[in-house]
Amino acid sequence: MRVDGTSYRSIWRSGDGVTVVDQTRLPHAFTTFDIATEAAAVDAIRRMVVRGAPLIGVTGAYGLAFALREDASDAALDAAYGRLLASRPTAVNLRWALDRMLRAVTAVAENARHETALSLADALAEEDVATNEAIATHGVALVRAALEKKGGAGPVNILTHCNTGWIACVDWGTALGVIYKAHDEGLPVHVYVDETRPRNQGASLTTWELAAHGVPHTLVADNAGGHLMQEGSVDLVLVGADRVAANGDACNKIGTYLKALAAADNGVPFYVALPASTVDWSLPKGVGAIEIEERSAEEVTHIAGVTPDGAVTRVRIAPEGTKAANPAFDVTPARLISGLITERGIAPASAEGLAGLFPEQRGA
Amino acid sequence: MRVDGTSYRSIWRSGDGVTVVDQTRLPHAFTTFDIATEAAAVDAIRRMVVRGAPLIGVTGAYGLAFALREDASDAALDAAYGRLLASRPTAVNLRWALDRMLRAVTAVAENARHETALSLADALAEEDVATNEAIATHGVALVRAALEKKGGAGPVNILTHCNTGWIACVDWGTALGVIYKAHDEGLPVHVYVDETRPRNQGASLTTWELAAHGVPHTLVADNAGGHLMQEGSVDLVLVGADRVAANGDACNKIGTYLKALAAADNGVPFYVALPASTVDWSLPKGVGAIEIEERSAEEVTHIAGVTPDGAVTRVRIAPEGTKAANPAFDVTPARLISGLITERGIAPASAEGLAGLFPEQRGA
Repeated sequence: MRVDGTSYRSIWRSGDGVTVVDQTRLPHAFTTFDIATEAAAVDAIRRMVVRGAPLIGVTGAYGLAFALREDASDAALDAAYGRLLASRPTAVNLRWALDRMLRAVTAVAENARHETALSLADALAEEDVATNEAIATHGVALVRAALEKKGGAGPVNILTHCNTGWIACVDWGTALGVIYKAHDEGLPVHVYVDETRPRNQGASLTTWELAAHGVPHTLVADNAGGHLMQEGSVDLVLVGADRVAANGDACNKIGTYLKALAAADNGVPFYVALPASTVDWSLPKGVGAIEIEERSAEEVTHIAGVTPDGAVTRVRIAPEGTKAANPAFDVTPARLISGLITERGIAPASAEGLAGLFPEQRGA
Repeated sequence: MRVDGTSYRSIWRSGDGVTVVDQTRLPHAFTTFDIATEAAAVDAIRRMVVRGAPLIGVTGAYGLAFALREDASDAALDAAYGRLLASRPTAVNLRWALDRMLRAVTAVAENARHETALSLADALAEEDVATNEAIATHGVALVRAALEKKGGAGPVNILTHCNTGWIACVDWGTALGVIYKAHDEGLPVHVYVDETRPRNQGASLTTWELAAHGVPHTLVADNAGGHLMQEGSVDLVLVGADRVAANGDACNKIGTYLKALAAADNGVPFYVALPASTVDWSLPKGVGAIEIEERSAEEVTHIAGVTPDGAVTRVRIAPEGTKAANPAFDVTPARLISGLITERGIAPASAEGLAGLFPEQRGA
């Protein structure tokens, strides 16, 4: 996608390693971060220099390739796999990418493992772009339908949560990919961006992406969505997912479930956009069954911003010593989801719906 | 309530005027603000030096009394009434307090109006304390019931939104008054405090109040409540209200509606605590009928906090120039409310329920 007219991806090969956009510095600075070792990959995932389920998967894959450059033995492979997998526990794409890597490299001799791994990581990155573009193409039909429902009088007001843009993937994005595609095709869209506390991925990344690409948008507090839906200001809710169970329950950024409840209460279509790699086919249901990552309390009690004189600083926004809880995800039950937008089309959020589009996974 | 062992009210008479705790400076500084003119009262309400529906009402009453010291004519009275009423459009207590003041002072001669007004404002403040203590006493029964439901094994986990404490009233508080009373009676309570974006009344005021009084609590992002209820971590939701319609629909801080939806979806009792002065008996229903104040976009894009070197500063947390919407309240439909805790007892959230406790208002 475009940043001031230049096309970017979120991760690209450079020298011995890869370079990524440093998402901890956005929107206040557009800088990059080099990853050429497994340790740097783990660090980047854990500190959320890279984030977004698809990008975490691709970064993990490159991390495994870099580990094999140092030591391609079975023992080193297993150890690196374990460390990378533990870097973020909730996103299933990371496991999916690492599993594909593991299968491919264990099938070849030690001296071919690094090259095999690097080629597969490249392929995963390219696959991700194609997958996201397919998701976007299917999702645009929903935007078109929303516009028709309004009698053609735009804009279509789309509410989104967290950041599911090109910066969360390799390019395009999942929910935001749909919005980019609709915008690029000339459909009138306007996006309500949930700020997405506590890490503010909406306020800092989604607004930045949309502004850079030229898509009209309005930032709102996470609390506002219910009211906006009550007053008829939202035509469509589009979100992403970090893990989807085989029955369609969707684990996504904390607060997604509240928006799904409001959408259901107000008859607003609520869709989850995801690549099939986000589906955990081994998980019959998601509610109560997915491990929810508990992150640092300081993410709630402190926040980074720009001072009036232009310096980026971190301030404490709660009384000193305040205890905080910080669950990073919640699970939206399938019953609240209008449909799942995947690279093969839009599926009902149910075991039958998913199995219909992905019959090869039946009984996986 | 107590601050470091000393008892405080949020507003008290001093010299020619009143002194209030400056809520724009909390929790980073505990300072006071003097109000001795109508203009200062309007300014304090508009800038949220004072906030909370009951305290806004009392502050408005004093403001009217101060206006009458300058000019007690009918014309001046009407003009001051209008300016004070316009200082915050949503809270009904302000209108209620100003209407009581207006009736009392128009009944007396011009030269007695200032004294009459000042006495009535004092009486309104005292009434507020008694009313809140009665609300607290009725509400404690709900905490006790929640404890019994858990087999006596505390703590009772109570989720609350915004700030409804003594600092929002004259003393005690509404929803938080219930919690103080339960705590003071020795019931084991633990409070999940919604940070309450965008103005963070939960993160900055509720945490500060609870810490100062010694009530165990944990701060959470507004997004977290749904997940906490899904996993069974919330036994009771207690919130306040800025305006309640005659049918029990409750207008409260933006985001309340989302918590009510989550409570209903998870079978968690959801109660609204309010003095009868918060009921707008002239309003048959609240959803779609209450004017929602739209506040400055900067409340969303900027936030105040303490830097590592101890300075209080304001930082921008969204990209420069980001457009933001900032509706300050939403309306929770009565169907999602388990009951209304008032100074006369707990009423079902319905026209019949309210009329049962306040029969004198029937057909008001």
